[in-house]
Amino acid sequence: MGGLAVIEVVALDGDDTLWHSEQMFVDTQARFRDLLAPHVDLDHAALDARLLEVERRNLSTLGYGVKAFTLSLIETAIEVTEGRVLGRDVQAIVDLGKALLDHPVQLLDGVPEAVDALTGRYRVMIITKGDLLHQESKVARSGLAEDLWAVEIVSEKDAPTYERVLRRHRIDPASFVMVGNSVRSDVLPVLALGGRAVHVPYHVTWELEQPDHDPADGDFPVLAGLTHLPACLEAMGAEAA
Amino acid sequence: MGGLAVIEVVALDGDDTLWHSEQMFVDTQARFRDLLAPHVDLDHAALDARLLEVERRNLSTLGYGVKAFTLSLIETAIEVTEGRVLGRDVQAIVDLGKALLDHPVQLLDGVPEAVDALTGRYRVMIITKGDLLHQESKVARSGLAEDLWAVEIVSEKDAPTYERVLRRHRIDPASFVMVGNSVRSDVLPVLALGGRAVHVPYHVTWELEQPDHDPADGDFPVLAGLTHLPACLEAMGAEAA
Repeated sequence: MGGLAVIEVVALDGDDTLWHSEQMFVDTQARFRDLLAPHVDLDHAALDARLLEVERRNLSTLGYGVKAFTLSLIETAIEVTEGRVLGRDVQAIVDLGKALLDHPVQLLDGVPEAVDALTGRYRVMIITKGDLLHQESKVARSGLAEDLWAVEIVSEKDAPTYERVLRRHRIDPASFVMVGNSVRSDVLPVLALGGRAVHVPYHVTWELEQPDHDPADGDFPVLAGLTHLPACLEAMGAEAA
Repeated sequence: MGGLAVIEVVALDGDDTLWHSEQMFVDTQARFRDLLAPHVDLDHAALDARLLEVERRNLSTLGYGVKAFTLSLIETAIEVTEGRVLGRDVQAIVDLGKALLDHPVQLLDGVPEAVDALTGRYRVMIITKGDLLHQESKVARSGLAEDLWAVEIVSEKDAPTYERVLRRHRIDPASFVMVGNSVRSDVLPVLALGGRAVHVPYHVTWELEQPDHDPADGDFPVLAGLTHLPACLEAMGAEAA
């Protein structure tokens, strides 16, 4: 790893960094619990734990995104009801998934202004993971696409993936900053490549995005919102110079 | 559209061009019919038609790929049984979907030799559509990835998508040839951009890939297999020179 250079490329995560996502999954899970309440005698935490177990088991085969989530909801419903779940309840679960896919994109506070400030100064890209079609559709509906230098939709956010994206766009890691709500997906793998990262936590984090974070992994700024990002990058750039 | 130039970039479709895919969906559909046979009094053709109707309705929301297919199978099962489908049958459908995702990649006859011959002469890329994670995994498991210049996984194969891919890789359409089994997805949109295309039919074509093909759309070679591709491209290049 060489020294840090001037910041040239700023990459933004999509879900829960630019637009709301996890809260919609949380709301959907609440409706899922209501749907199953007549059939099973499990409290909220126990049902959520069963779902998480199914999601974890399915991750390597189904990957991330709403379609994988919907299939995991269906499997969980069958398992916890020991097969007694009704056809109409399964259809209701499929419809919950479709509602998530069709949900309007709701930008987080201050996002258009922050992106506008950044695009005047850096090459700005989105690096997001999940269903290809759904992520493309969210980028398009966000109204942000026009000013972006690039959009990359990936199936996993680990160091090899970031390395591939950086190589493809001929980006020097030392001039690259990744910004997102997940320490596990947006921060640690980029630090490992010699890039910089900014953590902007969302008010709720999916269990499978919880990092095994060791302070020895490196330092990174933590911001309360994207509004503070332009000034933060300014300061990081000054530090590197 | 300018004149045709020397062929520089050859793009290959994945499913049913490099590796078997549609036949596995056909086999899965047969198992799906067997599963529902005790519950519904519909003949094969009628059940297939109901599934196709659901797939068509879901296409804009769910997109292509195995996860979308699995959700459409589940919806169809609920609809045709009027909700009487059992939890264990829904689980069996989910398992059919997972088996499709985990299925080993089976290359078509002569593919490694043809790709080997092409990579010595052109920049060779794959342009394929479907589930991001599944397509990446198939490319990796195909054993072909190492010699490829690029891999693009897209959510739809229409002219704007090809235009974006060509621009991203700075490819002149006049020097580009797309090769695939679908006239609708691999041939017509590329001809529309001023590129060339080669059709290599698979022995079965999904109904939603059937083209509305008008002979006025242009001419393209049709090959019996990828084995014939190097000689075909040679001839096309000579014609352009």
